[in-house]
Amino acid sequence: MDHEVEEMLAPLRVAVKEQGDIVKKLKEDKAPDIDIQKAVSELKHRKKTLEDKELELGAKDNIDRGKMEDLLKQKFFYDQSFSIYGGVNGLYDFGPMGCAVKANILQTWRNFFVLEEQMLEVDCSMLTPEPVLVASGHVERFQDYMVKDLKNGDCYRADHLIEATFEKMLTDKKVDADTKTEIRNLMPLIDGMSKEDMGKTIVKYNMKSPLTNNDLSEPMEFNLMFSTAIGPTGHIKGFLRPETAQGIFVNFKRLLNFNQGKLPFAAAQIGNAFRNEISPRSGLLRVREFTMAEIEHFCDPNQKDHPKFSNVADLDVVLYSACNQMDGKSPQVWKLGEAVKQKLIANETLGYFMGRIQMFMLKCGIDRKKLRFRQHMSNEMAHYACDCWDAECKTTYGWVECVGCADRSCYDLNQHSKATGTKLVAEKKLQEPISFKSENIIHEVDVVECTSNKGSLGKVFKKDAKAIGEYLAALSVEDCDRIEKELSTNGESQITVGTQTFTLKSDMVTIKRYTKKVHVEEIVPSVIEPSFGVGRVMYSVFEHNFKIREGDEQRSFLSLPAIIAPYKCSVLPLSNKDSFVPFVQELSKALTFNDISHRVDDSSGSIGKRYARTDAIAIPYGVTIDFDSLNAPHTATLRERDSMKQIRAPLEEIPLIVKALSIGQRTWEDVLNNYPLFEQQEATKEK
Amino acid sequence: MDHEVEEMLAPLRVAVKEQGDIVKKLKEDKAPDIDIQKAVSELKHRKKTLEDKELELGAKDNIDRGKMEDLLKQKFFYDQSFSIYGGVNGLYDFGPMGCAVKANILQTWRNFFVLEEQMLEVDCSMLTPEPVLVASGHVERFQDYMVKDLKNGDCYRADHLIEATFEKMLTDKKVDADTKTEIRNLMPLIDGMSKEDMGKTIVKYNMKSPLTNNDLSEPMEFNLMFSTAIGPTGHIKGFLRPETAQGIFVNFKRLLNFNQGKLPFAAAQIGNAFRNEISPRSGLLRVREFTMAEIEHFCDPNQKDHPKFSNVADLDVVLYSACNQMDGKSPQVWKLGEAVKQKLIANETLGYFMGRIQMFMLKCGIDRKKLRFRQHMSNEMAHYACDCWDAECKTTYGWVECVGCADRSCYDLNQHSKATGTKLVAEKKLQEPISFKSENIIHEVDVVECTSNKGSLGKVFKKDAKAIGEYLAALSVEDCDRIEKELSTNGESQITVGTQTFTLKSDMVTIKRYTKKVHVEEIVPSVIEPSFGVGRVMYSVFEHNFKIREGDEQRSFLSLPAIIAPYKCSVLPLSNKDSFVPFVQELSKALTFNDISHRVDDSSGSIGKRYARTDAIAIPYGVTIDFDSLNAPHTATLRERDSMKQIRAPLEEIPLIVKALSIGQRTWEDVLNNYPLFEQQEATKEK
Repeated sequence: MDHEVEEMLAPLRVAVKEQGDIVKKLKEDKAPDIDIQKAVSELKHRKKTLEDKELELGAKDNIDRGKMEDLLKQKFFYDQSFSIYGGVNGLYDFGPMGCAVKANILQTWRNFFVLEEQMLEVDCSMLTPEPVLVASGHVERFQDYMVKDLKNGDCYRADHLIEATFEKMLTDKKVDADTKTEIRNLMPLIDGMSKEDMGKTIVKYNMKSPLTNNDLSEPMEFNLMFSTAIGPTGHIKGFLRPETAQGIFVNFKRLLNFNQGKLPFAAAQIGNAFRNEISPRSGLLRVREFTMAEIEHFCDPNQKDHPKFSNVADLDVVLYSACNQMDGKSPQVWKLGEAVKQKLIANETLGYFMGRIQMFMLKCGIDRKKLRFRQHMSNEMAHYACDCWDAECKTTYGWVECVGCADRSCYDLNQHSKATGTKLVAEKKLQEPISFKSENIIHEVDVVECTSNKGSLGKVFKKDAKAIGEYLAALSVEDCDRIEKELSTNGESQITVGTQTFTLKSDMVTIKRYTKKVHVEEIVPSVIEPSFGVGRVMYSVFEHNFKIREGDEQRSFLSLPAIIAPYKCSVLPLSNKDSFVPFVQELSKALTFNDISHRVDDSSGSIGKRYARTDAIAIPYGVTIDFDSLNAPHTATLRERDSMKQIRAPLEEIPLIVKALSIGQRTWEDVLNNYPLFEQQEATKEK
Repeated sequence: MDHEVEEMLAPLRVAVKEQGDIVKKLKEDKAPDIDIQKAVSELKHRKKTLEDKELELGAKDNIDRGKMEDLLKQKFFYDQSFSIYGGVNGLYDFGPMGCAVKANILQTWRNFFVLEEQMLEVDCSMLTPEPVLVASGHVERFQDYMVKDLKNGDCYRADHLIEATFEKMLTDKKVDADTKTEIRNLMPLIDGMSKEDMGKTIVKYNMKSPLTNNDLSEPMEFNLMFSTAIGPTGHIKGFLRPETAQGIFVNFKRLLNFNQGKLPFAAAQIGNAFRNEISPRSGLLRVREFTMAEIEHFCDPNQKDHPKFSNVADLDVVLYSACNQMDGKSPQVWKLGEAVKQKLIANETLGYFMGRIQMFMLKCGIDRKKLRFRQHMSNEMAHYACDCWDAECKTTYGWVECVGCADRSCYDLNQHSKATGTKLVAEKKLQEPISFKSENIIHEVDVVECTSNKGSLGKVFKKDAKAIGEYLAALSVEDCDRIEKELSTNGESQITVGTQTFTLKSDMVTIKRYTKKVHVEEIVPSVIEPSFGVGRVMYSVFEHNFKIREGDEQRSFLSLPAIIAPYKCSVLPLSNKDSFVPFVQELSKALTFNDISHRVDDSSGSIGKRYARTDAIAIPYGVTIDFDSLNAPHTATLRERDSMKQIRAPLEEIPLIVKALSIGQRTWEDVLNNYPLFEQQEATKEK
């Protein structure tokens, strides 16, 4: 950001910092909650003003959202659900292109997180009985305030309505100056208004229903969950889950058991969740039904280091810390390692996931310059979280939260434990008893051990004795039993270590049996939760990759990375000449055999037109069968979407080249260096 | 089936045929509906008796369902949802193993159907506004009858309750012989009873609530859809979709457009659907929330042949036709080609999908001997279908419908069209106008054509003239415009055909412009629908692959095909010796790089125990790092689950061997033939 811009922002930064200091002071002085709340509202308002100005003055991308949405609609990436029935707000259907992009994002996520980190993936019910969501806090807290048009029943979010009315009044000549000043003072406070405050404000300024001018109801709580009755009696009240996380928490015991009782471990889930938004807008960003991909990493609350943290410690990340936000400063670039060391990020595990989130987002095609991590300020953090960072993407709607990464501490497990009377704990073996701790319990364990007589083992087995000793020390109870039995009946017992078999005699080993007291501590694990809003990531990927061909305004395209693109490859015969057909079919078959999704376009348009069409649906590579393909040795051209460069390669090598390119095992530069460039300019054919 | 069994079944077969003939006769005579209905009920009852006997006398598999369910529960393939809250009937959570199997089945389905057949996959909303489901018929017809316990409100399916009460009465000594005879006569009719019949029966036999003996309500309709309100006003009544198909139908126009207006094409969808069963039982087979994978193939109602039918014509399928069912005969093996030729299967497209369904099921591990296609009899077919075959799998619950394959004709599109006033049709170009058809319409189309003068082209371009002529004939309107403009201003125009550029002169081409009348017919496509119940397929796969090691009752395992198995490979260090660690880590990394899901088991159990553990979760291949692995050239053993045979191979080759095995590009036999057998008997280590 250049000097001039900074100068324009400076007074706004000062205003934020002033207010930030006031908030800090009030908190230090333990001022009444209501005062702090009001000060925080004003702080948020000033932050918003600063951010809006920053976006306004910042580097222009010139993304034409209308044009992009036209492309996405026209090529059926996604569109409103049930349109022929008039549609329903906040519900979208993904067409073939959007569905493929979504499936590819999810597959990439699964490989990157579940497979690479050996997470335990689960798939839980969406229908959720009420008590689960009472315990999680959703029944009480997952709500907005709304007002109803008293005549036609239309509903509005109360805060949105007040804000919109105020904005209208400020431009209304009939409203006097004093009232306008009053309104200007009230606007920053809307965010923190209680139900009563809102009701009073609506009455005082005589606010009406925006479309009909009818009277409005009092503000009322509206829970954002969809409710239904499970079973025929109507007695089991249920909701559609508002997040996938709860399914993991209620399965904690089974998952811990699957992981053989050991911490840490992570569970993951991909699935749909539902929010009955009062008046959804902003396209894919705020919808009533959406796909999430969530991870719950369970760990010892006192051990939040991460064995693989060193893998991400050197990553550069853009952090917009709570402090910087309070002080009106800009986000800053940090090395992740340094940020954790300085305690800016609470712990290594949280930092590790932030690094992994960034790597994943870049892999999907998010623009590095439009990605930042914003820390929740203490007043906006969920009541249970102890640190929380949102991965935000810059779009034409402003900075959008796409992935949350929170340390939820042990809140959820505790809540479900209280509600059900089921212990949701892990056991940690202690070296020594901690007598003052109530969680300190003692198990009596039967031990069976095989101790070897090193002397006689060494005498008989020489260099193998050590391996045999180790093998015996690690024997299972059943193996000990067997050896003991064989020694007492036959005087000898055979064991197999590696590839060799050895015969043990009675003097070589002793089987000991005794009871041992094991001191264990029961701990409620902490949970670190990275939570992905898949639709939001997808929308940001679309915006960050929407391009227009230089010099041709009409030719828009999507430069999605191959790994995310709906098809990896197009197959184009140069014309509809019959002799091309067998080559096209053969190639299509070979691509299918290699699991490469592709599209044959044998329509009659010119080759340039057909390239433009495949660019529009983000196909990264295109193979053209031309006249040279007909002659042995058979070859075809391979074109890359973004550079529009082409090479010529033997036909039989093409499927494997495309495969390697599309799973990222080979770069286009490498292909360019290994095959002759095909210099045909597609522009000459197209105009 | 041997002779003795057939003899025992013979009278039952005769009984079915007798009744089948009665039904046929009644239909021929156009008897009153109520009489036909009663006769059909009796027919169904006799068929059921025959089938039960067949299952009882048939080849015994000795599958111990209890044992299998223990294994699936213990290894957390799946288990009841929300157990710590007491659970909810008919809701299941998939744990890490089940989730992986499910994801693998879905990925296989996607590759086999969507990718290979170039289908248009979509992902539509589950929340569905009421009018859509009124049009589809679900609001009216998707229901069961239930009765309520008048005191505690418990609900029962009316037909189940009547049947259970009758069965109890038949064994009750206090019930007199006359009543028992009456009951025996009534039992076969339960299935066809109207609401009023059921009400009368309940009153007449003084039936009570089974657990409390309280009085019961009148039977009432209970719709099986979960209802909810969309948006805050409560005015938009919605349901959770009972099937995924409707999402495809309401998007028909967009999909046809995406396919450039051409028929036939198929759309596909994987997603969840919901049925509020009155009292769900039978584990995964009857649940309230389930995953479906559905295909809607749209085609010209007069052209139901299929270009790839020859690929499946020679497949052997077991068909249980409606005729055979009426006649009390057994299912028969048919060549698919022959069955279509004989019109047993209505058309090629239906037959093609039946073949593909069978291929898919076998790929997933369904036992060929436990798979059959049962045709719906005309009385059980949905009112819109013209032919319908269910792929049924034999399980311990009897024959279970896993995949439906129906010709739904044009019912759905017509219904949505009527409800919305939107035309849901495709246009078919006609060679000649069909003046007597109302769908026959005429479009006026502007045509721009470039005709070449063969003489002057040939003279100048010689052998290239033909290719140039073809190129010119296929020019787009824009290209024609450009050439015309260049010729009129410069007197020449350049075109690029293949790799060569040619210069055209004015005498070589003529650009013609005229209006042409195109006769098109609007047709409502027919729909062929293969519809997969993923949970049912999965459950059948589990039963068909549940095995017990010969000679060891305790050692049960799942012989799932590698493509479906949750992990493809285990990595086992022979003991917890430190020097094994780097080899294990290196191998794990290489497997991850190749996207091979695997599990490292470095716990202390003996190698045999650990193999047994990996067998139980169906891991098909196991790599053991042993003492020989430590020395160069480094090798490891590779074990196959079902045969328990092992080979030894160079460590660096192992990831690619496992990869090829797990995607089916190499067989275990081939591996056995190319690497030395490792003769170590695991049994010696295990006991």
